[in-house]
Amino acid sequence: MPSETSLCDESAVALRRLLLAKEISPVELLASCHARIDAVNPAVNAVVAEDREAAEAAARQAEAAILRGETEPPLLGLPVGIKDLNETAQLRTTFGSSAFAEHVPVRDDALVARIRSAGGIIAAKTNTPEFGAGANTTNAVYGVTANPYDAALTCGGSSGGSTVALATGMLPLANGSDLGGSLRIPAAYCGVVGYRATAGVVPMARKKMGWSPLWTEGPMARSLDDLLLFLSAIAGEDRRDPLSGPSDGADFAGLTAAPLEGIRVAVSEDLGGVPVSTPVRQLFRARCRTLAGIVDCTQAAPDLGDVDRCFEVLRAVSFLGDVKDLVARSPDLVGPNVTANVKLGLTFSAADVAEAETAQTRLYHRFLAFMEDYDLLICPAASVQPFDKTLLFPKEIEGQALATYISWLAITYALTLSGHPVLVLPCGLDDQGLPFGLQIVGRKGRDRDLLRLGLALEAAFERHPDLSRTAPDIGRLQI
Amino acid sequence: MPSETSLCDESAVALRRLLLAKEISPVELLASCHARIDAVNPAVNAVVAEDREAAEAAARQAEAAILRGETEPPLLGLPVGIKDLNETAQLRTTFGSSAFAEHVPVRDDALVARIRSAGGIIAAKTNTPEFGAGANTTNAVYGVTANPYDAALTCGGSSGGSTVALATGMLPLANGSDLGGSLRIPAAYCGVVGYRATAGVVPMARKKMGWSPLWTEGPMARSLDDLLLFLSAIAGEDRRDPLSGPSDGADFAGLTAAPLEGIRVAVSEDLGGVPVSTPVRQLFRARCRTLAGIVDCTQAAPDLGDVDRCFEVLRAVSFLGDVKDLVARSPDLVGPNVTANVKLGLTFSAADVAEAETAQTRLYHRFLAFMEDYDLLICPAASVQPFDKTLLFPKEIEGQALATYISWLAITYALTLSGHPVLVLPCGLDDQGLPFGLQIVGRKGRDRDLLRLGLALEAAFERHPDLSRTAPDIGRLQI
Repeated sequence: MPSETSLCDESAVALRRLLLAKEISPVELLASCHARIDAVNPAVNAVVAEDREAAEAAARQAEAAILRGETEPPLLGLPVGIKDLNETAQLRTTFGSSAFAEHVPVRDDALVARIRSAGGIIAAKTNTPEFGAGANTTNAVYGVTANPYDAALTCGGSSGGSTVALATGMLPLANGSDLGGSLRIPAAYCGVVGYRATAGVVPMARKKMGWSPLWTEGPMARSLDDLLLFLSAIAGEDRRDPLSGPSDGADFAGLTAAPLEGIRVAVSEDLGGVPVSTPVRQLFRARCRTLAGIVDCTQAAPDLGDVDRCFEVLRAVSFLGDVKDLVARSPDLVGPNVTANVKLGLTFSAADVAEAETAQTRLYHRFLAFMEDYDLLICPAASVQPFDKTLLFPKEIEGQALATYISWLAITYALTLSGHPVLVLPCGLDDQGLPFGLQIVGRKGRDRDLLRLGLALEAAFERHPDLSRTAPDIGRLQI
Repeated sequence: MPSETSLCDESAVALRRLLLAKEISPVELLASCHARIDAVNPAVNAVVAEDREAAEAAARQAEAAILRGETEPPLLGLPVGIKDLNETAQLRTTFGSSAFAEHVPVRDDALVARIRSAGGIIAAKTNTPEFGAGANTTNAVYGVTANPYDAALTCGGSSGGSTVALATGMLPLANGSDLGGSLRIPAAYCGVVGYRATAGVVPMARKKMGWSPLWTEGPMARSLDDLLLFLSAIAGEDRRDPLSGPSDGADFAGLTAAPLEGIRVAVSEDLGGVPVSTPVRQLFRARCRTLAGIVDCTQAAPDLGDVDRCFEVLRAVSFLGDVKDLVARSPDLVGPNVTANVKLGLTFSAADVAEAETAQTRLYHRFLAFMEDYDLLICPAASVQPFDKTLLFPKEIEGQALATYISWLAITYALTLSGHPVLVLPCGLDDQGLPFGLQIVGRKGRDRDLLRLGLALEAAFERHPDLSRTAPDIGRLQI
């Protein structure tokens, strides 16, 4: 079957325009997404639970609203994919865990409720590893999700179901979440856009440790304009996340590109020494050569300190807070990654936690000082390019064995710990035809400035054939 | 010597008006403060390090600025007391610790720098217990600070030096900080106003564990109008405190009283069961009877859960982050309270911390839900009235031995853990002539709403002879 462009391949921004102009109906759009899911999902396994009847009913309601002349809320009539870590009312939510294989929540969690009340059609759940542990997308409930550019390879994770659904046109918008890189790595591996905002900008009411800045919800889309539309619906104060302050997200949708003239950009292929493969270094250097023609670039990175130890401890504490009781109660229902995290956490003392928290604060202060001199810091979004999807993580980088199964994530988790916002933009393909992604770090709390510069960079990348986004070949994925 | 009103007894707001009208000079005002310090401080020991020459030079600079017609910044020419936990450039800062008995910082910390750049005259350091540990004000460097209403009794702490300096007219403004009640208890014991804002509203750049919402800096004054003037100078974004978001504090000075009609107030003498003495219960009930004539009151409190365990763990982690290395390095230079905290912290595991952090988050959510139904929650600001100043804490309440030396603080530390802002207003005297204070809790992140209602309540209290503020008898303190 040839690759043909369908309604579902249009951008969310274009679809919104078509919907409000009544040129298409939400029902028709949802049907186009369903057709694409039917055609492509068997090959990639990104979309998991669905309730098409409920989605169609919601689409008909949106259609009626538009026919009445309504033009708000911002996601009116747009199908949205929900990562399977977010609870959806009356729609199976497994957290990728056998312990929740048949869990059907009574109500939406706060993020899903916000998407629904913003007019989004809750179209499908997207796959994720067990409790989001690991930058892969495979679990005992639904199996593995494939990379749409090469179905033998991983799509990254833990938000891999969402990024694959976006890349293949199954859904125009889908959410992710991020602890150590969970929305950045799959965005890079699938050639889509992901955003880890300053903590609290996208409130995460479901955090069990409310003041921890590690986990965050985040929007994902095929372009930054689409992402900003999505962000405008999910950003803004929700006091159930104590890090969320008085703010309104509505204006994110109206952001325009900022001029790139005169900005100062730090570029670093490895943030001063975290594990990064030779191919990624080479790809990054090639991008930097092009980038240097667009903006003023300097090779520089903040001192990370012992970021591995810091993340190891804080990540383990986060798992203790989330799933320690489950592991104690039902050890047979929990997989090895999550169990290992909890076991590791049980070996740490309160003094270890205090040291990690003070270390994170020092790292944050070093980033603040560093970013006084730069508008942006740019580095690769993953240390290796996509690898075998049956592996939970790469065992080595350039012959160097990795200390732990999260060692390959240092380039993303270091930025988690920095407390600074990170945009991931796709930046062309490698020589295997696989997407390459960049992390673009802005100033803490200055999310709008970062996103405006991101719009300008995205436009600049689109003008360069080597850096522009190329969709995967959908035809090859259809049986 | 009779009690006479001097310039230094005027409110900060009145002094600012007199200064800008050139009716008084900053030099004259500082001299009045110095005269009061000379007269009263020997009896109370609230003011510790001073550099009068430097302060006089700053006052002359402020005088020159005013003579040039300058009317900003907000604290221009006003003497300010700095708690001895805050580093002051070229002025001895001991943290109440023998290990820092001769410590003279090279530069101001962020809070002091903000006060100085707001025109405040750094007039003196105010006493505090070692590293702020304990709701008393005594240490091995400077000794004990006395309550100005009865010099045999404690002024509370750890911001007791500041509240005594305010109550006695030694200084018109002074700062405090608060972990478990450190600016609330001394405010109550000295009949002044203190404010524990939502975390981040008054940024605390010096926190070693940046994302912890426990410690906060805060303004203190003799009236809420004065406090708001101070707050306007020290609130507003400082990204070095990661909990500080985009915001400007300037408008705090212009807040006006909100109408009390129609507001819903929850009152609770013990927050559902924390230790509170019979005299405090009786005083509170008497206040509630008067309060019921002013606002619509309901007896109610949120469920606190195991708030003692939660605070015990998180407080110990905070001490580990701050002083574990010092205790290990110089055990002989650290007192028993701080050492005990660190030792206790070393017995806790990372799992204990995860449990405490999730417990705090659940408590926060219960408070959020509770405050949906109420504009304010009012309770006593201390569980007992002022006691013997040679005791670090009361050993029992109503014959019940207290489990730990912080047990008597549950009524304040429960509110710390709640994550909600708390205003302390003086509310008359007890039958011993000692001040009684109320904690007035508002909604998280709605500090302006709380403070506007606070202005209305303060005005209402002033109209009732039993509830109005009565200054201590300065004459009795002079030798």
